[in-house]
Amino acid sequence: MSDDAAPEAVRRTPRSRRQILAAGSALVGGGLAEVIALPARAETMGGIENMPPHVPRWMKEPGADVGSQLYGQPSEFEKDVIRNVPKNGKQYTSSASRTPLQELDGIITPNGLFYERHHGGIPAIDPAQHRLMIHGLVERPLLLTMDELRRFPTESHIYFLECSGNPGFEAVKQGKTASDLVGLASCGEWTGVRLKTILEEVGLKPEAKWVVAEGADAAALTRSVPLEKCLDDALLVFSQNGERLRPQQGYPVRLLLPGFEGNMSVKWLRRLNVVAEPAYSREETAKYTDSMPDGTARQFTFTMEAKSIITRPSGTQRIAAGFNEITGLAWSGRGRITGVEVSVDGSTTWQPAVLQQPVLSRAFTRFRYPWAWDGRPTVILSRATDETGYVQPSFADLTAIRGMKSFYHNNAIVPWRIAADGEVSNGYV
Amino acid sequence: MSDDAAPEAVRRTPRSRRQILAAGSALVGGGLAEVIALPARAETMGGIENMPPHVPRWMKEPGADVGSQLYGQPSEFEKDVIRNVPKNGKQYTSSASRTPLQELDGIITPNGLFYERHHGGIPAIDPAQHRLMIHGLVERPLLLTMDELRRFPTESHIYFLECSGNPGFEAVKQGKTASDLVGLASCGEWTGVRLKTILEEVGLKPEAKWVVAEGADAAALTRSVPLEKCLDDALLVFSQNGERLRPQQGYPVRLLLPGFEGNMSVKWLRRLNVVAEPAYSREETAKYTDSMPDGTARQFTFTMEAKSIITRPSGTQRIAAGFNEITGLAWSGRGRITGVEVSVDGSTTWQPAVLQQPVLSRAFTRFRYPWAWDGRPTVILSRATDETGYVQPSFADLTAIRGMKSFYHNNAIVPWRIAADGEVSNGYV
Repeated sequence: MSDDAAPEAVRRTPRSRRQILAAGSALVGGGLAEVIALPARAETMGGIENMPPHVPRWMKEPGADVGSQLYGQPSEFEKDVIRNVPKNGKQYTSSASRTPLQELDGIITPNGLFYERHHGGIPAIDPAQHRLMIHGLVERPLLLTMDELRRFPTESHIYFLECSGNPGFEAVKQGKTASDLVGLASCGEWTGVRLKTILEEVGLKPEAKWVVAEGADAAALTRSVPLEKCLDDALLVFSQNGERLRPQQGYPVRLLLPGFEGNMSVKWLRRLNVVAEPAYSREETAKYTDSMPDGTARQFTFTMEAKSIITRPSGTQRIAAGFNEITGLAWSGRGRITGVEVSVDGSTTWQPAVLQQPVLSRAFTRFRYPWAWDGRPTVILSRATDETGYVQPSFADLTAIRGMKSFYHNNAIVPWRIAADGEVSNGYV
Repeated sequence: MSDDAAPEAVRRTPRSRRQILAAGSALVGGGLAEVIALPARAETMGGIENMPPHVPRWMKEPGADVGSQLYGQPSEFEKDVIRNVPKNGKQYTSSASRTPLQELDGIITPNGLFYERHHGGIPAIDPAQHRLMIHGLVERPLLLTMDELRRFPTESHIYFLECSGNPGFEAVKQGKTASDLVGLASCGEWTGVRLKTILEEVGLKPEAKWVVAEGADAAALTRSVPLEKCLDDALLVFSQNGERLRPQQGYPVRLLLPGFEGNMSVKWLRRLNVVAEPAYSREETAKYTDSMPDGTARQFTFTMEAKSIITRPSGTQRIAAGFNEITGLAWSGRGRITGVEVSVDGSTTWQPAVLQQPVLSRAFTRFRYPWAWDGRPTVILSRATDETGYVQPSFADLTAIRGMKSFYHNNAIVPWRIAADGEVSNGYV
């Protein structure tokens, strides 16, 4: 226990002043409770002075049995915290559902709320029947059962995963919530076998330069991956946040390419074909290329660049004047986030946010900034920097180069407008 | 990308040799696949040479719609991966269910499989009606709604939680699986408000020495916590692994005391009474004290000492001769795990295991050790050391001091017996 934590230290201290200052806030002086001006406080305080505390219904009767849920579920009072499915997209087998980022805390996305993007629906694969084939320009092709794959050495890492169209350039004005805008991003702890280990088993021929990954879904989604990535941090993943992959995430096995656009982390992985040239498959020609202003298209734009978004306060939420913690998420496909700056005056001035430790490479990083809102309308924004020195651009700066024809790889700063009544809305509008 | 990862480096290398050596194994020479002697391999290899790969049923028909699960669930093929409830305990409101540790990977326990220990069942609390009162030896008592609590500065940390009776001393011979033996331990990412922040708000009076925490369940579970812990790393938690706490974990708010025995992290928290002396409540007198051989009892034994267990291979699993990765979990209530040693010869010799990075204070630490089983019967064990230098004791060493009357705080080494047929069983038997 640190000296700083000794009771004496606290008693010597003007209430909360040290804590507020430590939080890097401008709120010198009075306590948080004062600044927050807790609305229910005066009314409820009487309860403490005048009577024993109210005994609620749930203390007067036994609760539900232990193990009444052998696989637990969220509280019924959280039934609205669900995946965010576009009204016109829910019935499609090629569509997406978004993580409700504005409802979540920390950096781990629970498996039940992890974003989805499917091209041929979600297959129900029997792991006993599933096989993973590694063939092509190799010395010793392999056909692996899931049990066999699990006998190789394993690793666990916390990595984000993000769809490359998160959101499309034309869509930035349409979203209302943080989920609507960048909910095609989630983060989990993945466990699997290093792809490098398997490629060493099969032995690469000298002409080997790419690996074509194929999924066992109805779309047979196919992407070409540079050999260098396959021999670096690529994983063959069978577990997510401790338990086996969910069907929506590629059960029983998926490719995971940390920092690359999500669709390349091929789900329901059945085939790795080692080749000399890319496959130029549908998903890397007709789709997932970036249209530029001059009519050309950028192909094989794999890496998701540095990005951040304020999740609280964010669109459709309402805040009160006084203390509000600004918090959100930042991530970069190129490595660690080294800093997040927050602006509470429409990007006129920027202040550094506090990053939750540990900051992990290619993982969500939670940032926080303590703020006293004076009740005047304003716009709040966050701006991420990664370990390569790259700084998240404004939408204006990004589109000045990329134009508006592009759909993929929009990592622009997201502005949130705060009205006089505390209503938070999309600052692009 | 490291030079080591360049394709040339791989081609120059006898298959897997570098990888095996890097893994610290004694398996010099032939590749992993050879050592593993993949059983299905010969049979299935023909498929690659002689015909295009088999196209399974799930590639010939569209899969389930996107968003068909607005809150996702595990695969139907994983329906047996559930909480482990004692047959005679399932119907009790005061009982426990265990995490199936032997089925899980990594360090995060998914919320659906987090262990449970309830004393009056699981209350269904309406967060809008719930209040948290902070009173007693304070200058300014507080009664907080959940919305008010969430307006204070927040933190997120990955911490383990463990029941103090995991397992009882007499129970070590009864368990068959890793879950049976130490499944009353789980690990998650918690988000909440530092209790220190709230205690600074209310202002401590000079006589303040303890804080009595009371739950809003039918048992009104009550524990006394030393003020020093409350001013150190204690949290008021409302989120677990990103989403709101599950009802089984204290929804809408619980106390979290990192490294302390689980029952002190009072769930459904309704009251924090700052006092000069402990409450000597039922759960710290009749229960949760440690009976010693001389008939005395140790009281207020808060900290969970360093512990580890091999989860794979473990009881009721079966292994084949050749390469097997030994993996498991280690943790300490006193801080970081600094090392885990593995013995594959019944504790005659010990070798260091590899610790998955990052190693976090008071969190599960995943360890791995590559092993080539020669097919002869043996006993495998793991032994953890924490940053204080404390080494996990054998059951014999522990009981030499503690005797067998005690039920709580058994952190002894767990032995797994491996028979000639590869069957793994409880080494205490």
